[in-house]
Amino acid sequence: MTGLGATENTMQTPATTQTATTTSKKTRTPTPMNGVDTPTLFATIGAVKAQPELASFQFRATNRWQQGTHSRTRIEGFRGAGGEHEHAREFTYDADHPAVLVGRDQGPTPVEFLLHALAACLTAGIGNIAAARGVTLYEVESTVEGDIDLRGILGISGEVRNGYRQLRVSFKIKGDAPAEKLEEIVAQSRARSAVYDVLTNGVPVEMSVNAG
Amino acid sequence: MTGLGATENTMQTPATTQTATTTSKKTRTPTPMNGVDTPTLFATIGAVKAQPELASFQFRATNRWQQGTHSRTRIEGFRGAGGEHEHAREFTYDADHPAVLVGRDQGPTPVEFLLHALAACLTAGIGNIAAARGVTLYEVESTVEGDIDLRGILGISGEVRNGYRQLRVSFKIKGDAPAEKLEEIVAQSRARSAVYDVLTNGVPVEMSVNAG
Repeated sequence: MTGLGATENTMQTPATTQTATTTSKKTRTPTPMNGVDTPTLFATIGAVKAQPELASFQFRATNRWQQGTHSRTRIEGFRGAGGEHEHAREFTYDADHPAVLVGRDQGPTPVEFLLHALAACLTAGIGNIAAARGVTLYEVESTVEGDIDLRGILGISGEVRNGYRQLRVSFKIKGDAPAEKLEEIVAQSRARSAVYDVLTNGVPVEMSVNAG
Repeated sequence: MTGLGATENTMQTPATTQTATTTSKKTRTPTPMNGVDTPTLFATIGAVKAQPELASFQFRATNRWQQGTHSRTRIEGFRGAGGEHEHAREFTYDADHPAVLVGRDQGPTPVEFLLHALAACLTAGIGNIAAARGVTLYEVESTVEGDIDLRGILGISGEVRNGYRQLRVSFKIKGDAPAEKLEEIVAQSRARSAVYDVLTNGVPVEMSVNAG
């Protein structure tokens, strides 16, 4: 989740079109583009401004151990915009360790899903922000790399952290705008990315256990 | 990725079995259990201790924008243990925003993948650590909830962060050990979880853009 990024400052140069209404009154209306329903996006932002409690969301996932390092997660419903919602379908994802880490490779490692989350969040924001700024996108690709020293999780060194020590994201973006404007869209997406925020700044995690 | 957690302190009470070798010499050998090949796990840890550069891994993901907020990630290869590796198959994952957030719900939101990564990492560690400690697991389930105020990414409030403000993980675990021992296994998994570390402590993220 990133960039319902059509923030006020992203709207400095909104995509507009001259439309003739049935009353012949000309209005400037945001134009849907890049697959983004820009008018609805702006209307949503307006609604949340008027009623901030709509912005309170809770996302959820449930996971069940399969065997060894293999587990499976279901993602179904979430709360937000004043109510409960179901995704269009139930999403399930497996994770595991690869053979070289003594798993059975029934899915990517959990840390690889962090890379997916980061790329997808930044890219969703790019889609929204480009549409808000009237830029047609031709192509957006990214590669995310994460460096990790497994002596942490292996408990071999107390000085090595468990997680990644560094992530690198490389974007390639093409559209009908100068390079500088495309770069600004990527920068704005980063500035409003939920996953980028969590990964760079961290988040408090509470844990509870029911054992028996 | 978590808990190749059979660290030295997790091995205080290793699972062992009396085996009679062909020479009739009795040795204490870790026992495979819970789907974990414990002997190979311990051998791997021993190999990394002897040759720490084997612990240097790089995980990768590539993402391609589809339309709107919809993108698709491929996870194929990674580097580690002194070489390049391919997963057993190519893994692909879609992410999108749901209709209530003006997306088309072609996949979970990126922030929901963070919840999956956290649950899967902690659970993989529980599988390994339980095996290392000789505990047979019957069931491990977890629910992860994440609270987020979307006024951040919507740009409506400069005081609201973009990402989650709080995550909560609830584990239910059953096995052939007292509740206290099961709780210790969960605690040890958290102490050596790569995703828990990244989410709670953050990680530096470098970004580059090739626009044109």
